[in-house]
Amino acid sequence: MADSLVHSSDPLHPANHICELCRKFYTFGWVTGTGGGVSIRHGDNVFIAPSGVQKELMQPTDLFVMEYESKKYLRRPPVLKPSACTPLFMAAFEKRNARCCIHTHSQWAVLVTLISEAGQQGADRNVFSISEIEQIKGISRGGAGSDEIAEGGRKIGNLGYFDTLRIPIIENMAHEEDLRETLEAAIEEWPETCAVLVRRHGLYVWGKDVAQAKTQCESLDYLFQLAVEMHRLGLKWVK
Amino acid sequence: MADSLVHSSDPLHPANHICELCRKFYTFGWVTGTGGGVSIRHGDNVFIAPSGVQKELMQPTDLFVMEYESKKYLRRPPVLKPSACTPLFMAAFEKRNARCCIHTHSQWAVLVTLISEAGQQGADRNVFSISEIEQIKGISRGGAGSDEIAEGGRKIGNLGYFDTLRIPIIENMAHEEDLRETLEAAIEEWPETCAVLVRRHGLYVWGKDVAQAKTQCESLDYLFQLAVEMHRLGLKWVK
Amino acid sequence: MADSLVHSSDPLHPANHICELCRKFYTFGWVTGTGGGVSIRHGDNVFIAPSGVQKELMQPTDLFVMEYESKKYLRRPPVLKPSACTPLFMAAFEKRNARCCIHTHSQWAVLVTLISEAGQQGADRNVFSISEIEQIKGISRGGAGSDEIAEGGRKIGNLGYFDTLRIPIIENMAHEEDLRETLEAAIEEWPETCAVLVRRHGLYVWGKDVAQAKTQCESLDYLFQLAVEMHRLGLKWVK
Amino acid sequence: MADSLVHSSDPLHPANHICELCRKFYTFGWVTGTGGGVSIRHGDNVFIAPSGVQKELMQPTDLFVMEYESKKYLRRPPVLKPSACTPLFMAAFEKRNARCCIHTHSQWAVLVTLISEAGQQGADRNVFSISEIEQIKGISRGGAGSDEIAEGGRKIGNLGYFDTLRIPIIENMAHEEDLRETLEAAIEEWPETCAVLVRRHGLYVWGKDVAQAKTQCESLDYLFQLAVEMHRLGLKWVK
Repeated sequence: MADSLVHSSDPLHPANHICELCRKFYTFGWVTGTGGGVSIRHGDNVFIAPSGVQKELMQPTDLFVMEYESKKYLRRPPVLKPSACTPLFMAAFEKRNARCCIHTHSQWAVLVTLISEAGQQGADRNVFSISEIEQIKGISRGGAGSDEIAEGGRKIGNLGYFDTLRIPIIENMAHEEDLRETLEAAIEEWPETCAVLVRRHGLYVWGKDVAQAKTQCESLDYLFQLAVEMHRLGLKWVK
Repeated sequence: MADSLVHSSDPLHPANHICELCRKFYTFGWVTGTGGGVSIRHGDNVFIAPSGVQKELMQPTDLFVMEYESKKYLRRPPVLKPSACTPLFMAAFEKRNARCCIHTHSQWAVLVTLISEAGQQGADRNVFSISEIEQIKGISRGGAGSDEIAEGGRKIGNLGYFDTLRIPIIENMAHEEDLRETLEAAIEEWPETCAVLVRRHGLYVWGKDVAQAKTQCESLDYLFQLAVEMHRLGLKWVK
Repeated sequence: MADSLVHSSDPLHPANHICELCRKFYTFGWVTGTGGGVSIRHGDNVFIAPSGVQKELMQPTDLFVMEYESKKYLRRPPVLKPSACTPLFMAAFEKRNARCCIHTHSQWAVLVTLISEAGQQGADRNVFSISEIEQIKGISRGGAGSDEIAEGGRKIGNLGYFDTLRIPIIENMAHEEDLRETLEAAIEEWPETCAVLVRRHGLYVWGKDVAQAKTQCESLDYLFQLAVEMHRLGLKWVK
Repeated sequence: MADSLVHSSDPLHPANHICELCRKFYTFGWVTGTGGGVSIRHGDNVFIAPSGVQKELMQPTDLFVMEYESKKYLRRPPVLKPSACTPLFMAAFEKRNARCCIHTHSQWAVLVTLISEAGQQGADRNVFSISEIEQIKGISRGGAGSDEIAEGGRKIGNLGYFDTLRIPIIENMAHEEDLRETLEAAIEEWPETCAVLVRRHGLYVWGKDVAQAKTQCESLDYLFQLAVEMHRLGLKWVK
């Protein structure tokens, strides 16, 4: 069962790190009732939290380990099922050179997609936009890569206070794996986004490492919650 | 006092498991002020949290233990009173072959029964319905049993994204034990439900094991909270 | 400094118990920014949390100890000031034979007094009333005493589901000690209440022991929060 | 690297204290996604949390240490960047003789600046005002200094229940360091304030020691949250 792949005394080993992140995300309401997930790409391998496991109780031995290039599983815990998010995590790794991808079922994420769906904050139902909130500066352009100038001359680094944050929204489908096509299309259509919202479902967000993915996830969730509160107060998300 | 029934070093022994669940549920606001409860059926016995005890301080020695078939108590802690939920837990065990039943006083559960009572989300006051929210997939059809096809050809497994979740609502009564009749009637009338809401009171939810009962309880509470937020935003629960 | 009065290895010794309760209450938002307090009457003495101390950091050596009959301090930590709630705690001990009194600055308590003040839930601005919510059964009649029939034939025990919970509201004043008169008047005018709300300030609640005071405080705070949510949804507190 | 500056077994050593405060503030949603910060002035030095670090994971070795008089860094962790709040912390230290300054991205702080911006609670968009809420008594006049009478005869000590709390609001800018001028102007224009709100950004609050800064930050955040709830209920902040 290749247990050596998931055994380490280093708390930052992906197998330990995923469990610690899941415990934290559970307290935020992001991975309630076995929803949501985390994946870390490390060296040649990808570590993925399984489907249907209580996230706050996860153990390193629950993790699936896949070889990134071949997409073959090096470790498959018996009894457990691979995460349905796996193709979506892979999309972020491949298209953004990300090293960590997080999927949450945050209620705030779901609510902003519902407000958008109802056209309550503007005509474009397929994007969440917000401007001039300081926390926007916690979001990077694209969410991975390095500090060099990217192709096409697009800007690198984080958004500025006067920038408008735009996160695309794709429609949910009956089966999570079927989201891969539209998720990849959104990633390509929105080169500056580090995340994609899934209507009535939640959020996918990635980063060049765990710290970036996790802190961006926090900043996005903060902005989603603030947006719902602003909406209740009759305030516009984009000035 | 048959302490051996509740003493074990195994954290998954029902006596330990109930205490751990209660500590967790207390942080969710589900078992505030001694309300709510948990029961686990294990082997020949049923383990039940007592009435009137602070749930986050519960100890294995506080538990009542009943022999399932005879309904006789094998262990009755002195001073403490048996849970008033006991007949309701038994209804879930008997009618659904459940192994764990959870009762919460979640405010979100109470609020959706109030919104329904006021007819604010449709004409049927006696059922909570919601559709097309991803978290619905965390709810099973019936909440117990196995993976084989059930009698009558009804579907097994969890709900799908395009299914409508329906949870029956029964009226509260002066004494909790008196709910047994209407709870059993609801269980029979709604073969696909894994839970019953009690108006102005809370939720009963069961599962084939602790994991299913607990994760379904989480998913339901998430959906109740989301439903209240959606209602505040003027959004319909059923598309 | 009579340290022996506050040193014990028993977690239920009042000096330890008050600190543990304060840590818990801090997480509920009840004792934010040094507001709120707890007092336990034990044997011949009264143990009181001091004024101006961060409640979640409290140590047994921070406590004041007063002899109940003489009202003389047996222990006064240097530097610290006695709690301004002291006369109010004493009112509950003397008039209700209580053994524990809790004072919170819960925002839910403040909000229900504001809704009442604005006449938004009925004509009587000086009482918080709510009926037919199961959690009401967590509230006792009077909050102290024993199981015998009280003078005047008033009923003993907890409220029933069909009873209406009524908590009197008194007006706040510039100095907390000045509330003593109106608090005592409310206690006398409302023999069945175990608590008094102070407008724009918070809640005083007592019990025959710590468990009753603490669980009633939880149930009341639950009902206050639920009441605010019900009010936002346009629902009446009293059916 | 002058590690001796940040190594101590004393939990109240600024290097340890800042980390402990950050862990606590993270749970309040004040320092989400690396936003916010804390600085403590101790002896001849100033200890400052760095930019871009996950606040709940901070270690003493992450801290910058600056000599107060010369403004020269005695310790600069490699890789990390100094906090952009540094000039703003220094403004509080210099103009108020403060010893601790806290910066939060609290959503409640942001929301009250948005309600004010929209003129929804009165004509003065550049100040947050609230009166007759008991928690106001947790706020000092000025937030530092001592108990002697200040120059100009202004009152010392905390606000009273019948006082009106007024916190100035300054406009946010693209770069945090650029806020120094307007922050200093607000500090001078409002000699009784212990804090300044930054529109769409958050809060700066200081105190004569950590306890005062931290407890005032708690009381302000309580008042901001209460103000948002009051506003939703159609209630005026100033009676």
